[in-house]
Amino acid sequence: MCVCVQLCLIDMIIYGALYVSGHSSVRWSRVLRPLLLVNVTEGRQLRRAFRSIRNALPQILVVFCLFIFSVLMFSLMALKLLSKRNLTTIDGTSYFTNYLEIIFDLYVLVTTANSPDVMMPAYNYSSFFAIFFILYIIINTYTFMSVFLAVVYNNYKKYLKEEVQQLVKAKRQKLRKAFSLLQENVGTGGAGETGETRGEPVVSRSRWTELVKQVQPSISTAHRELLWSVLDHDNKGHIGKQAFLQVADLLNIQVITLKSRPHPLQLWIPSLYESTASRVIRRIVQHRVFVYVYDAIILVNAVFIGLDEEDPLVSSAEWAFLTLYVLEILLKLYTFEPRAFFSRHQFWNWFDTIIIISALLATITNAALKSSGGYTSRQILDIVFILRVLRLIRVVDTIPSFRAIINTLIKIGPLMLTFGQLILVVYYIFAMVGMELFKGRVQVFAADSSDPAREYCGNPLLKGSTFARNNYCKNNFNDVVSSFVLLLELTVVNQWHVLTGGFTAVTHAAARIFFVLFHIVVVIIIINIFVAFILEAFFVEYMVEKTDLQTSLERKIEELNLCVEQEQMDGNLGAAMETQDNDLGSSEGGKARPTLMFKISSKRYRTMDGLLQRMFETETDLSADDANEETEDMNFSNPSFSPA
Amino acid sequence: MCVCVQLCLIDMIIYGALYVSGHSSVRWSRVLRPLLLVNVTEGRQLRRAFRSIRNALPQILVVFCLFIFSVLMFSLMALKLLSKRNLTTIDGTSYFTNYLEIIFDLYVLVTTANSPDVMMPAYNYSSFFAIFFILYIIINTYTFMSVFLAVVYNNYKKYLKEEVQQLVKAKRQKLRKAFSLLQENVGTGGAGETGETRGEPVVSRSRWTELVKQVQPSISTAHRELLWSVLDHDNKGHIGKQAFLQVADLLNIQVITLKSRPHPLQLWIPSLYESTASRVIRRIVQHRVFVYVYDAIILVNAVFIGLDEEDPLVSSAEWAFLTLYVLEILLKLYTFEPRAFFSRHQFWNWFDTIIIISALLATITNAALKSSGGYTSRQILDIVFILRVLRLIRVVDTIPSFRAIINTLIKIGPLMLTFGQLILVVYYIFAMVGMELFKGRVQVFAADSSDPAREYCGNPLLKGSTFARNNYCKNNFNDVVSSFVLLLELTVVNQWHVLTGGFTAVTHAAARIFFVLFHIVVVIIIINIFVAFILEAFFVEYMVEKTDLQTSLERKIEELNLCVEQEQMDGNLGAAMETQDNDLGSSEGGKARPTLMFKISSKRYRTMDGLLQRMFETETDLSADDANEETEDMNFSNPSFSPA
Repeated sequence: MCVCVQLCLIDMIIYGALYVSGHSSVRWSRVLRPLLLVNVTEGRQLRRAFRSIRNALPQILVVFCLFIFSVLMFSLMALKLLSKRNLTTIDGTSYFTNYLEIIFDLYVLVTTANSPDVMMPAYNYSSFFAIFFILYIIINTYTFMSVFLAVVYNNYKKYLKEEVQQLVKAKRQKLRKAFSLLQENVGTGGAGETGETRGEPVVSRSRWTELVKQVQPSISTAHRELLWSVLDHDNKGHIGKQAFLQVADLLNIQVITLKSRPHPLQLWIPSLYESTASRVIRRIVQHRVFVYVYDAIILVNAVFIGLDEEDPLVSSAEWAFLTLYVLEILLKLYTFEPRAFFSRHQFWNWFDTIIIISALLATITNAALKSSGGYTSRQILDIVFILRVLRLIRVVDTIPSFRAIINTLIKIGPLMLTFGQLILVVYYIFAMVGMELFKGRVQVFAADSSDPAREYCGNPLLKGSTFARNNYCKNNFNDVVSSFVLLLELTVVNQWHVLTGGFTAVTHAAARIFFVLFHIVVVIIIINIFVAFILEAFFVEYMVEKTDLQTSLERKIEELNLCVEQEQMDGNLGAAMETQDNDLGSSEGGKARPTLMFKISSKRYRTMDGLLQRMFETETDLSADDANEETEDMNFSNPSFSPA
Repeated sequence: MCVCVQLCLIDMIIYGALYVSGHSSVRWSRVLRPLLLVNVTEGRQLRRAFRSIRNALPQILVVFCLFIFSVLMFSLMALKLLSKRNLTTIDGTSYFTNYLEIIFDLYVLVTTANSPDVMMPAYNYSSFFAIFFILYIIINTYTFMSVFLAVVYNNYKKYLKEEVQQLVKAKRQKLRKAFSLLQENVGTGGAGETGETRGEPVVSRSRWTELVKQVQPSISTAHRELLWSVLDHDNKGHIGKQAFLQVADLLNIQVITLKSRPHPLQLWIPSLYESTASRVIRRIVQHRVFVYVYDAIILVNAVFIGLDEEDPLVSSAEWAFLTLYVLEILLKLYTFEPRAFFSRHQFWNWFDTIIIISALLATITNAALKSSGGYTSRQILDIVFILRVLRLIRVVDTIPSFRAIINTLIKIGPLMLTFGQLILVVYYIFAMVGMELFKGRVQVFAADSSDPAREYCGNPLLKGSTFARNNYCKNNFNDVVSSFVLLLELTVVNQWHVLTGGFTAVTHAAARIFFVLFHIVVVIIIINIFVAFILEAFFVEYMVEKTDLQTSLERKIEELNLCVEQEQMDGNLGAAMETQDNDLGSSEGGKARPTLMFKISSKRYRTMDGLLQRMFETETDLSADDANEETEDMNFSNPSFSPA
């Protein structure tokens, strides 16, 4: 990292000096800048991704060489078969006569960008040549690209697994150390009921509580009590080593503590809030039909959005819909306890409220502007439109199978951001190189410009090219934003040869190397990692049932009658809370339903590493090496901690 | 199946009747024909693939609905944002004004076929609209398509696993049955050395030998002896149940029995074959440098192939290369035992010889034709060219890491054929429907035709369309072959909208339904199964090390000093054989190296199910239910088989 910073400084000095003296130089250090991001930020995930790519490289290289060999063979065959037939492409240029051109054309066919076009002249000549291209597509486009995915995926998985295993191992070692520091010997001085427990080291409840308090101060007392009761099944007042080692995993399970609070209005104006009318309203809001009615309203709204908004009927309908949505939120706030409604895990409630309030504000601003001077701000109107459409997304939440998929996607969101970073870094490097190579070669003209140069993007070399004809002038390397958009288009791969062709025309055929390199790095490697990642995340969702620990925690919660059913959680959260009247009661459940309830959000992990660990939990069986270290540790059992 | 045949018959009768009476009808039963293939052929694999698709459908449907919802949302947003801006596409048509057109355009964007074009008008208007399209591509093109792959892959794997588990279970049950029929009680009447073996049922060697002879008559006596010695470690003369259950797996492991035979020439003309000159030649051929020299020759040949073959120097060089290749094969046949050289597992030897002989024949035929009348047959010349290039492929075999990949690909070849069948069935159905819908709507004209209709594929509706401009007339549904080629192009997806657009123009916009359906079925479902399959096959290669059974078999082979090293097997097979002089010797190895040797081709399985079983071997842990049935079986131990 130091090297990187130094290089950047040197470059800046050189550039400054040359700029002052009137020269311009290549700002080569720009390329290095993103490496700072990799090193400086808390980019553990990013570094991990980079390392997994680096480790996969040798294997990818082997497959790549074989793939290139296959392309060369096919090209040679194409040259021998087609070069003497005097075929022409639709542009009138000769078809498949130059070996290097054939290689490039067939490489482009792997990206599928020139799919039927490259085949058409030969196919028009004779149907038999279709066999050649079909074989090529099956072997190179489908099989080899799948093999690339397999190699990348496999390495990604292997590397991640190793790293997670190391993490787990380190965690266990530290926990063991902690145990040996905290342990006390029961048995020897104690009762010693059975032969088994003699001298067995344990950790007492008070020490454990102290530890958890120090490690995670944010955890509630009730939650801590719950965890203890899970670890100490038999209520012995102390836990053994095996139970102690579970502490970290238990803390990693996200338990939502639900406090049953009375509604504020109930405290302020109890007579009104408890009146019959109020009760009826609340019952209606909690009813399933209420949800259906609003789903129907959303669907009708969708139709209205599709209609022309300049129609007065439609614009007044818009006000009606907005009122309905606001009313819905107010009713829900009236029915449910506001703090529970806006708790951290109620994603859709937050989403809803923010969208509606923004829409309300934007619509009002728009109306005010319009009535004040008949002037409509295009930007505000755009925002209003977007918000209106976004409102409709909520309908997804009412369909359980949709919700499951969306939840998975939301959950892997943070990890996907890692890939966002990775792609940004790679894009940035290529954008910088691209800007050095192609800056200013392609120009954009305003749509109303009458300059004849507009026809060929201001570069005579592009006259009559497909690039200019398709009006691609704005796809250029003139600034960072344009470069990023262009690189995204190249990632999507379609029209790859046209985009590439434009830049080759304005510079040199060797520019192809840059674009082929980009294709290899981004499409063959990075996108495959992205696919591998999504696959892995979904497999975890499908395969891994709740882990053992979670199940035992859940069992305990159920046992203690502290469980909130999923149903109640999702839709009408407050319902369960609202029906009970006692607002006192210990967290350890009595017969009456307690005010404090727990819910395991079983599929949500606090940390990213928690998710990763779970990904490989089924495969990383550490019990074997555990047993080894177990015996080893026994010797270390600290004698200075005499019995309590 | 009967229903299918009946329907086909009915259709044929109706068609015949109508044809006689001068009407033409829709041959709807054509669509059903491929179902015969599914039912009639020994298509267990094919039916399995179909069933796994059927089982995956509900889950795919959920994701698909969510995906369509997302497309609809984005379309609605695009309509609101862009319809009022009076933008035009490069064709001059209005841009994003019709909701249905927007949906279709954005669906096409998921296929990436219209990637930058659909964005350009909005992007040219304002760079901010790029954000909209980038989000769309990230969410729908990348994320949803990966989710589809995840769902298809997961279901494919799950279903295959279940089926393989059932197979394994059935196999074990049958083996257990066989054991209970064949078992004899040792111990009771016998010595009963330890307490453990009292009454333990066993199978004697003679019965086992009889069984294996009946089950697999093709197996050599030596191979059978080897298997027995693996099962009966301690040479007790009988095997227990646990060992007996391994029989099927052991038989499934492909053991190559190598018989060290003297070279025929050694028998016929021993004096000459054993002369010093002959020995030197053989040593040269076996040397590593010989392989390198021929690799160099192949590379030089590749350069010559690239040159113009009408140059007399090049054409005479071609004769020289041909002579060199023929000489190589003759030398190898002289050095190595011909039957070993052409044994079933020597893929590359076969490949080489066939290619060279074909090339020799074709070149001679070509030369003969040329000298006889100066006439050159284009077809023969094409074949000569193809064979020449294919010769070069051999170079791959000398690079070990390439060979590993190629071996994997060759191994999954038969399973890939299943997918070939599957795709053929689906293509056939779509081709038939396509022919009913579009037959004759697009016509092909000869290249030298002066008919003005050639410009628009004989259909005035295509005048000025991109379809006609790109000269796509030959992509039509006029016959089965053209339909298949067109469907392949649609599978590759590029220019999808142009191809689709052509057929929509000559019929009706509703024709899009057909093409979208094809995209969903083939690209979203079937191609993903193909990818899943390749991934799975490669993961097995990477992950699963040799199974326990194979290792024990290998250990035994090594122990008995019957092992052939990999090195010797691959390159110069005969080397090890040739150096030893004794041509007698028992198969159970003495001190001297035996004439009979074994080699486990550890990664090759006799049957497809063997491969599949291995795929899931690591995951299908049947030991648990085994133990259950174990105790159960004990009660059945047949008392009628009294001690021998």
